[in-house]
Amino acid sequence: MLILGIDPGYATIGYGLIKYEGNSFTSLDYGAIQTPAKTELSYRLSLIFDGVTELINKYRPDAMAIEELFFNTNITTGIAVGHARGVILLAAEKCGLRSYEYTPLQIKQSVVGYGRAEKKQVMEMTRIILKLEKIPRPDDAADALACAICHAHSYNSRLFR
Amino acid sequence: MLILGIDPGYATIGYGLIKYEGNSFTSLDYGAIQTPAKTELSYRLSLIFDGVTELINKYRPDAMAIEELFFNTNITTGIAVGHARGVILLAAEKCGLRSYEYTPLQIKQSVVGYGRAEKKQVMEMTRIILKLEKIPRPDDAADALACAICHAHSYNSRLFR
Repeated sequence: MLILGIDPGYATIGYGLIKYEGNSFTSLDYGAIQTPAKTELSYRLSLIFDGVTELINKYRPDAMAIEELFFNTNITTGIAVGHARGVILLAAEKCGLRSYEYTPLQIKQSVVGYGRAEKKQVMEMTRIILKLEKIPRPDDAADALACAICHAHSYNSRLFR
Repeated sequence: MLILGIDPGYATIGYGLIKYEGNSFTSLDYGAIQTPAKTELSYRLSLIFDGVTELINKYRPDAMAIEELFFNTNITTGIAVGHARGVILLAAEKCGLRSYEYTPLQIKQSVVGYGRAEKKQVMEMTRIILKLEKIPRPDDAADALACAICHAHSYNSRLFR
């Protein structure tokens, strides 16, 4: 199963593509879509939509896993990231790709086994699970890979329930 | 000049199309795009994107005017409407249509002449400006028309500055 993980944002959108087969994980690609600051929001949204659409068309994943948004502090940032997340979900829908949403808590629990794990621990476990030499950079890409791993575990537990 | 006003939301998206010529306003169309409750967010976003794209292609407006989001109370609603607003801005961008954003304060000031006007006053003034017999329904459509009027006034003041 191919899973495209996405860490949503409007300046930097992390992505990570993993293959999950026979309980084993392989990282196929990861990185970040970036949009130029000081350009109009609608133009940045268009770049995000096109970038995600391109990834889906290139790899034809079986599912998209995307982090849910939780903002307790800055509602302006929350709304702006909400705009970006909207066009990411739209890109999946327009490609006929099903998307699944996971909270930061679910991702930590799934990757580290502990919902209050530190960000560093999640990244290190992501590296180990994917058998990578270094922790993927940027952080947004590592977060996206962790989200994809979370979906694989969740999908697996659904299958054998 | 043809202006498409939009009142963003994810369940009900108000729209209003006005013609502004020689300091006179005409309402050409108004209404609401609605998305079914209890369906997936990505599906609803797709309906919103398609609905707005259809309006733009049908009327070929010169500008889109859309309300800015202000949420002080409910961040969950704010993020959800942010998703919808993202795909609305994307629809305009993909059609090559320039979008302009106005705060509720700017709209009230522009339509009623008083930034702290009541919602009822804004609707009544919208009705009078557009020479309509009744206040447009639903409220979301009236809000969208008010936003379009605000853009016309703002554009006009820019022209003769």
